[in-house]
Amino acid sequence: MMSTSAVEVIVAKRDGVELGDEQIRWFLDAYTRGAVADEQASALLMAIVFRGLSPRELSTWTDAMIRSGERLDLSSVPFPTVDKHSTGGVGDKISLPLCPLVAACGAAVPQLSGRGLGHTGGTLDKLEAIPGFRSDLSAAEFVAQLADIGAVICAAGAGLAPADRKLYALRDVTGTVESIPLIASSIMSKKIAEGTDALVLDVKVGAGAFMRDRDRALELARTMVGLGEAHGVRTAALLTDMDTPLGRAAGNGLEVAEAIEVLKGGGPADVIELTLELAREMLALAGIDADPADALADGRAMDRWRAMVRAQGGDPDAPLPRAVHIEEVRAASGGTVAAVDAMAVGVAAVRLGAGRARKEDSVSPSAGIVLRVSPGDVVTPGQVLAELHADDPAHMEAGLAAFTGAIRLGDTPVTVGSRILTRVAAP
Amino acid sequence: MMSTSAVEVIVAKRDGVELGDEQIRWFLDAYTRGAVADEQASALLMAIVFRGLSPRELSTWTDAMIRSGERLDLSSVPFPTVDKHSTGGVGDKISLPLCPLVAACGAAVPQLSGRGLGHTGGTLDKLEAIPGFRSDLSAAEFVAQLADIGAVICAAGAGLAPADRKLYALRDVTGTVESIPLIASSIMSKKIAEGTDALVLDVKVGAGAFMRDRDRALELARTMVGLGEAHGVRTAALLTDMDTPLGRAAGNGLEVAEAIEVLKGGGPADVIELTLELAREMLALAGIDADPADALADGRAMDRWRAMVRAQGGDPDAPLPRAVHIEEVRAASGGTVAAVDAMAVGVAAVRLGAGRARKEDSVSPSAGIVLRVSPGDVVTPGQVLAELHADDPAHMEAGLAAFTGAIRLGDTPVTVGSRILTRVAAP
Repeated sequence: MMSTSAVEVIVAKRDGVELGDEQIRWFLDAYTRGAVADEQASALLMAIVFRGLSPRELSTWTDAMIRSGERLDLSSVPFPTVDKHSTGGVGDKISLPLCPLVAACGAAVPQLSGRGLGHTGGTLDKLEAIPGFRSDLSAAEFVAQLADIGAVICAAGAGLAPADRKLYALRDVTGTVESIPLIASSIMSKKIAEGTDALVLDVKVGAGAFMRDRDRALELARTMVGLGEAHGVRTAALLTDMDTPLGRAAGNGLEVAEAIEVLKGGGPADVIELTLELAREMLALAGIDADPADALADGRAMDRWRAMVRAQGGDPDAPLPRAVHIEEVRAASGGTVAAVDAMAVGVAAVRLGAGRARKEDSVSPSAGIVLRVSPGDVVTPGQVLAELHADDPAHMEAGLAAFTGAIRLGDTPVTVGSRILTRVAAP
Repeated sequence: MMSTSAVEVIVAKRDGVELGDEQIRWFLDAYTRGAVADEQASALLMAIVFRGLSPRELSTWTDAMIRSGERLDLSSVPFPTVDKHSTGGVGDKISLPLCPLVAACGAAVPQLSGRGLGHTGGTLDKLEAIPGFRSDLSAAEFVAQLADIGAVICAAGAGLAPADRKLYALRDVTGTVESIPLIASSIMSKKIAEGTDALVLDVKVGAGAFMRDRDRALELARTMVGLGEAHGVRTAALLTDMDTPLGRAAGNGLEVAEAIEVLKGGGPADVIELTLELAREMLALAGIDADPADALADGRAMDRWRAMVRAQGGDPDAPLPRAVHIEEVRAASGGTVAAVDAMAVGVAAVRLGAGRARKEDSVSPSAGIVLRVSPGDVVTPGQVLAELHADDPAHMEAGLAAFTGAIRLGDTPVTVGSRILTRVAAP
């Protein structure tokens, strides 16, 4: 009976028939309970990859995923809540300075974050490079820290959108990740269940992003903004460039160090630009009239960072772990840096030990890459282009091999534009 | 590592990239061994539903399914071997008279057959209505009976195309049955592994068939003929009409009775026509110059039937089981029989107890339907249109409800054409 109904839902989607609300709710509920089998869910997911979901189907699907678990109640937090989500890129450590910065301006940032998989790093892996840092807070600790400090970055509890957790793991092994409605519902169900009032999305596009095509990235952004607004979460999105790694560092502890530079008032121009622009979007949605550049300049953002790290068991003054093996990559010839390939840098960082090929792998807090040049820089023969960090020679060798050709030199000048390509807001 | 490779194969097919021979062989072998999970296989199957398989992919896929198990060796059989496969229809008892008829003409028919699922009956379910009949022969018994009598109809052993057995069960619960390359490879892998020299396919098209569209049925026939020839099995196909049930009986024992009528030289015209036409195709492929009508008329076919039934433990003289409840359905008004809806008759027969809704259900040997009219017949008010047979009142009620409207009366004359729509042979 169960499997008959599951087959009916699969066949309807396969044949391009719009699913009814009851069919969607039943299927997701039965799957979460284990009454619909993984092989039936993966067949439906593949049919959705080909057929898509109509706006009505997508809204119901997302709602069913939210209702599969608890929705956090942040009404006790005495500040407007606003979160940020990035679709993931190489060197994307923006959450680290952004969360305390926005908190320093008077909003509360309830950031439930994830771990890295594939060529992009995960925010929790980065923060755990800080000695003592704890990312597994209880819901009560999460809400208390939010009310107290306004900034919290931790792992989502198992009770939040369990249907998404199960579907996400299934999509990962069945080639059904790349579907705009499935990506949008996965991200938005978790963010809506998290209880935030407002949300800013950083949708990455380019060689180092999951979306390489700008039109598809724009469609994803519009889909997610629509879903957020339909569920009462004020939502906006920025489409940002991910052809080139963000900033100079890729790797857990190395990115924390770069985030701290930014909080100190320094750091790479693109990281500063994107941090401030996302902060402005978040504050605008939260209804707070403040310039985040002030909070960065006068040290309030840094104070909030130290408070957040300390509240989660970390020591903000402890030195970050340093890799045993560091190798410099030098320019064979002179020229202008034409491009830094974000995908090559991301893959090399994983090979060095900074990321995981499989969910069950552990990551090194110290491995990774520090770029010494950016597109447009003029280099001389023998100049250091990058430093590779690894804990052992085998990882170093694999990282060096993957890094080959990541930095391309040319002989014409290069103009570097803004990271921000376009903005998407509710109509 | 395994799951990474499985995802690569799924993603390639999803994105329309032709799979390599090694990828197909690895995937099917790993799936059969359990190293690729059901949810990965079902995702690939759904991608194949949308993307299809190229001729090269399909040939490798089928070959891999054959190689997943044993291929029977029929070289000890002293007659040319030729089999028949029907894609399934309502009232399709043709295998029962056909197999002994062709054997009586000098060929050996090594028929490995299946059970009914859905609205069509299964040959083994029909034969097992004969008291004592055994359909689970060992491979040695199968070959010995083939050499001795030339006619054998039994279940395929577990060693034959195990990859297909596993995939077929998976397709059934994941909405991935309706794909021409998947149907073609499933049928042909079993028939090729069975070891027959030649094969005639009866591809049904119409309201009571799995293929309702003639173009798709033709594509399926051409695909299967191509696969057979490519694997050294001389293959031809007839496209035959399945808008109307075949003959007058639908139900296990009732169909055996009709088959015996045909073997006695009587029976409905359409069953006789199709039996003889398929026999002629089989004998032509086997290189035997004989007219099957003679073997039917002079009783040799009946002798061979009796020998086959006896060899498999059945008593050809035992009365067939008779249902306790028999109800007549009468015409409410007069008119000409415009149509008998094969799907409605098939579903009603299942509800009466003749078929199974689920694989684990058992079937009644006596339940079913005997039609008393055919398209074109003129009926008077109150005339009996059909007899419904069931073992208990609940089944009878369900069958009567499903049978409503199965026979449509009109007021214009109806011309009944041949069952045979077209023939497909190797170029």
